[in-house]
Amino acid sequence: MPETALALLLVALNVASFAAHALSATQSDTIVAMERTALDRWGKGDPQGYLDIYGPDVTYFDPMQSKRVDGLEAMRALLVPLTGKIKIDRYEMLDPKVQQHGDVSILTFNLVSHGRTPAGEAMVVRWNATAVYARRSGKWQLIHHHWSFTKPGA
Amino acid sequence: MPETALALLLVALNVASFAAHALSATQSDTIVAMERTALDRWGKGDPQGYLDIYGPDVTYFDPMQSKRVDGLEAMRALLVPLTGKIKIDRYEMLDPKVQQHGDVSILTFNLVSHGRTPAGEAMVVRWNATAVYARRSGKWQLIHHHWSFTKPGA
Repeated sequence: MPETALALLLVALNVASFAAHALSATQSDTIVAMERTALDRWGKGDPQGYLDIYGPDVTYFDPMQSKRVDGLEAMRALLVPLTGKIKIDRYEMLDPKVQQHGDVSILTFNLVSHGRTPAGEAMVVRWNATAVYARRSGKWQLIHHHWSFTKPGA
Repeated sequence: MPETALALLLVALNVASFAAHALSATQSDTIVAMERTALDRWGKGDPQGYLDIYGPDVTYFDPMQSKRVDGLEAMRALLVPLTGKIKIDRYEMLDPKVQQHGDVSILTFNLVSHGRTPAGEAMVVRWNATAVYARRSGKWQLIHHHWSFTKPGA
């Protein structure tokens, strides 16, 4: 009887562990998919994919700004004028990782983007990327975004 | 009687709101103070201040790395050899902001560091900084750190 109880306990623990792992994998997949969807649109010259998922309190860094950009309205003012001006043919999202803490997911990755200059010349850019997502009323919002060049001096 | 009850309710709500605000301000102050303490040590050539507060699962970007650095052991291997090699005379932490979501605090700021080259020449560097802290068993750990140059092309 103790052996049976132990066996049942082990089965239960395995099921619980599998369920936790599956849940966790699903949450990571959701976050990565959200970022990819917005990035795909961005690469076609459409910033609305990101604007749709930014929270009202989003904070943002990229290498073209002289300081942090704060809030959705400021992001709209920054990104809407770029509509139609970005052209990324393809990208590789390298080793995406999601660190989960309750209702916050921190997605980090390196990105190699194969794009074109306004003159149509091929241009490869290597990026470091941080995207922090927070879940509010069951919906994930992107609340912090930090893009920087990988080894800009190299 | 209803007026008295309403008045008491309003007082109670004000007290609760004040308490929540005070708690929130304190939490922001704690996070900013942790970062400043580690940064002060870093500027004196001592990376141990950061190594003491990094979580085991820390992820890290800076402009000198060719990709994301993962985990405390990798950070130790990266930073310990820099002991005694960094000299920052002073810095300005510009407009630090803490976004709080449960047990996660996202600290962002711009930094102007006034340091010296190995040859002793004055050097001013402008940074974008993201530091994500997670509270575990009541203790804050730095679990993601992203340093980049502000307008590196400028």
